[in-house]
Amino acid sequence: MTDQSIYAYISGKKPIIEKALDHLLTPPPGNRAERVYQSMRYTVLNGGKRLRAILVMATAEALKHRATSVVKAACATEFVHACSLILDDLPSMDNATMRRGRPANHLEFGEATAVLAADALLMESLNLVSDNCTEVALPADLTARAVRALADAVGPEGMIGGQHVDLEIAGRSADFETLEYVCSHKTGALFTLCVQLGALLSRAREFEIQALENYAKNLGLAFQIRDDILDEVGDPDSLGKNVHQDAGRTTFATQFGIDAARKAVHDLCNVAVDSLQALPVKSAPLVALARYVSETEE
Amino acid sequence: MTDQSIYAYISGKKPIIEKALDHLLTPPPGNRAERVYQSMRYTVLNGGKRLRAILVMATAEALKHRATSVVKAACATEFVHACSLILDDLPSMDNATMRRGRPANHLEFGEATAVLAADALLMESLNLVSDNCTEVALPADLTARAVRALADAVGPEGMIGGQHVDLEIAGRSADFETLEYVCSHKTGALFTLCVQLGALLSRAREFEIQALENYAKNLGLAFQIRDDILDEVGDPDSLGKNVHQDAGRTTFATQFGIDAARKAVHDLCNVAVDSLQALPVKSAPLVALARYVSETEE
Repeated sequence: MTDQSIYAYISGKKPIIEKALDHLLTPPPGNRAERVYQSMRYTVLNGGKRLRAILVMATAEALKHRATSVVKAACATEFVHACSLILDDLPSMDNATMRRGRPANHLEFGEATAVLAADALLMESLNLVSDNCTEVALPADLTARAVRALADAVGPEGMIGGQHVDLEIAGRSADFETLEYVCSHKTGALFTLCVQLGALLSRAREFEIQALENYAKNLGLAFQIRDDILDEVGDPDSLGKNVHQDAGRTTFATQFGIDAARKAVHDLCNVAVDSLQALPVKSAPLVALARYVSETEE
Repeated sequence: MTDQSIYAYISGKKPIIEKALDHLLTPPPGNRAERVYQSMRYTVLNGGKRLRAILVMATAEALKHRATSVVKAACATEFVHACSLILDDLPSMDNATMRRGRPANHLEFGEATAVLAADALLMESLNLVSDNCTEVALPADLTARAVRALADAVGPEGMIGGQHVDLEIAGRSADFETLEYVCSHKTGALFTLCVQLGALLSRAREFEIQALENYAKNLGLAFQIRDDILDEVGDPDSLGKNVHQDAGRTTFATQFGIDAARKAVHDLCNVAVDSLQALPVKSAPLVALARYVSETEE
């Protein structure tokens, strides 16, 4: 798959995802918490790259299932991602003011509504996964496993653990192991969830799940290091968010330097691609997604 | 069931619940987010009445299932409850300083950790429900329904919606319908979840679920109004939390007066008990729990 065609692949999937996200975040008639829905919509429907949702869909396709059979699970991962953005930006966390060119959620809706919207997104993401399992008539054990995959990806052994340690190391140096923990939990856990959901809903075999998890773990780590590089050297206008916003934050880029961080991104994406060898048919979109993460402009 | 025996019933169940909660909140070996676990434990293991967990167990028993077969789901409802207490007390919400005789979670652990712990409790509650479904070999459709029951009870059509409107009406008068919305969503949704989980895991028939939901809806409403009465006239030392903490908050008690609120509690508990008539065998503990809510000392 060429650079050209991965962009075409992404452009083909995005409208499906955007339409589903918009539909799924329509407040039910007579709802009294409309402002909470507005707050959820504000962060979810804000022109993200949809890499996570596309990863769920590309995983299903790599396993010869239709991308449209996993749309709800794909949207669930975008909900979880949006939740993490809202929480990250809170005054008690990164205290960020801008996100994708607009005021952070808590500045637009107030902190109470932002926190409630973040939790509402988590709950709706579980509804989506559960509904998707029912739609594809998944057996009980795989349904329970999909729910657990989401809960674990977010929980204290996942994103929440990563965020906690990230805040803990702010303002001081951290060893390689700690930085890897933060990246693999803050970001990697959600990338891993994407392939797990795509795989479980497509009834993948265990060795396929394993290969996809290895791919996602390395891709997620690469993606987070890339994000930290952009935070150091990126252009705030094109990024649409604050850069250097956490002068005190310790990342691969601040700790080992930009060049070492760039090399790590490159190497991790190669390992991610190699992991796909274990699949019966190598998936061109999954390979191209790894190249895309590795080579995005700074 | 006499007053005496409902206390004995509660005393018999509590140690089972406390032991399970303690066990389920033990950080896995090598965990790096220990402070998040400490924060979760701080609020969960703080000597609550465990009414919600007991309601799950009493529901299973009313349907001739063993209380111990629903212990994980029972603990899940206590996790959700603890999450709601942490969020309620946040500076951006009720800004409370004391809870059950100790500093509020965010004062003990900081706001960032408190928010992460609250979310972690939600995620773990879903793991517990999912595990419990697997343990009792529940079919896929009922497993998905149990997950959805929890997600809906917390989400924008449940607790989150109730909390949002509660904050919205602070400092101004509210009509009966709005106050009922707040009580039934902030508290009633979780009581309803308790009987839903107990019933689904016991493979109850639809008419039984319906009867139990009616019971729980009324019981939850009564319980919240009771709580608001205690906030007005209760003794802070015996309650272990601030009273009059939200001078601006609008509740049944502030809006319609203490006497009208007391009468509402009494009537709602009677309706709750009447709802149980539809069950094949009337459950003495469920009846006694309603009396217990109705008659707790102020």
